[in-house]
Amino acid sequence: MALEITKDLIDNVRELIKNQKDTALSNFFAEVHHADIAEVLDELSFDEAVYIIRLLDSETTSEVLMDVDEDVRENVLEQLSAKEIAEEIDELDTDDAADVIAELPEERKQEVIQKIEDKEHAKEIVELLRYDEDTAGGLMAKELVKVNENWNVLTCVKEMRKQAEEVTRVHSIYVTDNDGKLKGRLSLKDLLMASTRSKIADVYIPKVDFVDVHEKAEDVANIMRKYDLEAIPVIDELGVLVGRITIDDIVDVIKEEAEKDYQLAAGITQDVEADDTIWQLTRARLPWLFLGLIGGVGAARIMGFFDDAIAENAILFMFTPLIAAMAGNVGVQSSAIIVQGLANDDVKGSITDRLLKEVSLAMINGLALAILLFIYVFATEQDMNIASAISVSLFVVIIVAGLVGTFIPLFLNKRGIDPAIATGPFITTSNDIFGILIYFWIAKVIIGF
Amino acid sequence: MALEITKDLIDNVRELIKNQKDTALSNFFAEVHHADIAEVLDELSFDEAVYIIRLLDSETTSEVLMDVDEDVRENVLEQLSAKEIAEEIDELDTDDAADVIAELPEERKQEVIQKIEDKEHAKEIVELLRYDEDTAGGLMAKELVKVNENWNVLTCVKEMRKQAEEVTRVHSIYVTDNDGKLKGRLSLKDLLMASTRSKIADVYIPKVDFVDVHEKAEDVANIMRKYDLEAIPVIDELGVLVGRITIDDIVDVIKEEAEKDYQLAAGITQDVEADDTIWQLTRARLPWLFLGLIGGVGAARIMGFFDDAIAENAILFMFTPLIAAMAGNVGVQSSAIIVQGLANDDVKGSITDRLLKEVSLAMINGLALAILLFIYVFATEQDMNIASAISVSLFVVIIVAGLVGTFIPLFLNKRGIDPAIATGPFITTSNDIFGILIYFWIAKVIIGF
Repeated sequence: MALEITKDLIDNVRELIKNQKDTALSNFFAEVHHADIAEVLDELSFDEAVYIIRLLDSETTSEVLMDVDEDVRENVLEQLSAKEIAEEIDELDTDDAADVIAELPEERKQEVIQKIEDKEHAKEIVELLRYDEDTAGGLMAKELVKVNENWNVLTCVKEMRKQAEEVTRVHSIYVTDNDGKLKGRLSLKDLLMASTRSKIADVYIPKVDFVDVHEKAEDVANIMRKYDLEAIPVIDELGVLVGRITIDDIVDVIKEEAEKDYQLAAGITQDVEADDTIWQLTRARLPWLFLGLIGGVGAARIMGFFDDAIAENAILFMFTPLIAAMAGNVGVQSSAIIVQGLANDDVKGSITDRLLKEVSLAMINGLALAILLFIYVFATEQDMNIASAISVSLFVVIIVAGLVGTFIPLFLNKRGIDPAIATGPFITTSNDIFGILIYFWIAKVIIGF
Repeated sequence: MALEITKDLIDNVRELIKNQKDTALSNFFAEVHHADIAEVLDELSFDEAVYIIRLLDSETTSEVLMDVDEDVRENVLEQLSAKEIAEEIDELDTDDAADVIAELPEERKQEVIQKIEDKEHAKEIVELLRYDEDTAGGLMAKELVKVNENWNVLTCVKEMRKQAEEVTRVHSIYVTDNDGKLKGRLSLKDLLMASTRSKIADVYIPKVDFVDVHEKAEDVANIMRKYDLEAIPVIDELGVLVGRITIDDIVDVIKEEAEKDYQLAAGITQDVEADDTIWQLTRARLPWLFLGLIGGVGAARIMGFFDDAIAENAILFMFTPLIAAMAGNVGVQSSAIIVQGLANDDVKGSITDRLLKEVSLAMINGLALAILLFIYVFATEQDMNIASAISVSLFVVIIVAGLVGTFIPLFLNKRGIDPAIATGPFITTSNDIFGILIYFWIAKVIIGF
């Protein structure tokens, strides 16, 4: 079913491009889904990709352009004239069209918009460009089927047919009043059962889920997932129906949000993929590593304060990596659970309750691990003070790390900052430093150096 | 639109239950979406939840049961008789019904299945129970609209009407031959345009995406996402159409896969939520922490081999947390990118190419960070040997950690093991040990102790 993208296949396509076998190429790609053509283009050079785009009809290539990697799209669009881009745009639904135009350099945007033939389409795209891409407005398309509550069934069916031509998948028929305000939805079945002279106002269902145009994309995703919706209408500040979001866009939002959180937890700052260039990957990875370096230098400085004690208490210094690692691990666990809960809108109740719960949890884990460590160190070192210092520190450090890991994401979230940045290297590094500080302080108290 | 679940609301519901105000409760919940009722139930005690389930009609409660947390469902079902559960099952689509039954204890399964009134429904559920829950078979529902290619349009329309009653959302009409083999799909438009006596064989579209019943859920999700499908038919080994998967189930798969990977990367072994009990959270978190403890003890033992050197080279010991943390950070970054790439089916080409790329990347990051560290240590310690030992170690450790982080997930994936377990604490702990071993070995060579 799906095309398998092998090295042979790519080499074949390259060869055909080199020899300008346009008919063979057209015939081959005619049978291939646009998502697969996009994968082929991702593997080709930019010049080769442009060659294919120019060869295929704009109905296909506009879909292909939506599916290729962002850097391929950027480069291909650079090679095309404003007129050629406008032709692609004409084939796209308004939401995709707005996404493509939003990626263009400022001066080209105007040029392309003016060259769009369908003026109504151009107007709708301009409207969509006003919205932030992470909001319902940025996700929605203008293509939808809507009817006026004052129409009768006959008019309604006629109008619906006209509108449905523009819309790939109908999903729902929305009902508005004379001012365009969303009133409800219409079931196709009820419409077919009603007499042709009935007014829509008498047959529509007034209950309909909707979102505000400024709702955050992540919240729209949560709503559609929770209520199993395949499409949701979008209204503006006046209650006017302005667009519609479909489930396929939401699938992408869910996927991207999850990947972003995962990458932040792994210490990767930007949206990168395994196939990106070394330069892109370096830029995404170096900043958090630099933070880790600063943290490590900080830890070394803290230990420097205790360097008088090192000769007599060498064993203490050997357990610093253990304490630091455990602080990091506990911190990452706590913060990950909170970050995920916040993303799913699952975290309710007061911050104090959360912190109390985390303390109880950390005390159980901490006690279990501290007892094990005490037994090990006492068995190998035969020194009650050393064993106590190390295991009591572990216990305290686990509790503090759990609290820090819980508190920081909750705090960031309250301040409107994405809590996901508080996972991974950020929490590990700060907990390393906390951990080592607590460790040497407790050891000093117990052993007395 | 959505019901806001406040503490007041929960208290009110509790009060109504306590005073057995059944009419008030029924009236209140009649207006509430089942997903919201489920959220209310999640906040109530099990007895209270059972009270509500018994009060509402089984059409509503069957949906509610699908939406509540797994532990609530388990407890509510324990309180219900086999007959009551069978009534709920009768209201559910086959895929949801099979999921509920799969969660029941072995001896109850039989009892409940025998009490299902609709015997056809029961048979279909039994069939679905055969499939692994992480495969297409485990995801699919038996409810779908299918027509025989040998029917004429008139028969087809009549049969479709009958079938459509069972199906919540039609999405697509599938065409099969006399043996039930999937041949293609039917467009509603083509059907309406065709004369009533035309044979379906002459009007259907032979091109249709499908998946095999044993296809992995994650791969089904990738296919549906890639091709923007809202439903996909499922065929068995003989090509017979056996079910259909809809996008709402795929949204849950994508979400769950992403959450599972995220939790593994954070060192949490089971599917837990912020609201789970302390005991559930402990069980999910303690195993990885225990691994971290073992790793820390291992690191301490390695450093023990070098304890002669500690008095003269105290500064070396102070940088062990830095080396260990950087090894962990680099390892997590590399493994996360590979794990995510594997999940998205993005990682192509040979393992050697991947490792070479990772070496180049690690060399750039390593060199930049090693130079900074060299400057810092030399400036503070004024000792060329110490500064060299620490910074050369950092450079080497970053490369090794990158290789380990890249290789292990690729290796696990080749062996058919979920590569996501190789992120987080696993990679951090193994890299801590590698890192410290390399560090002291290089330091010994350069400084000579």
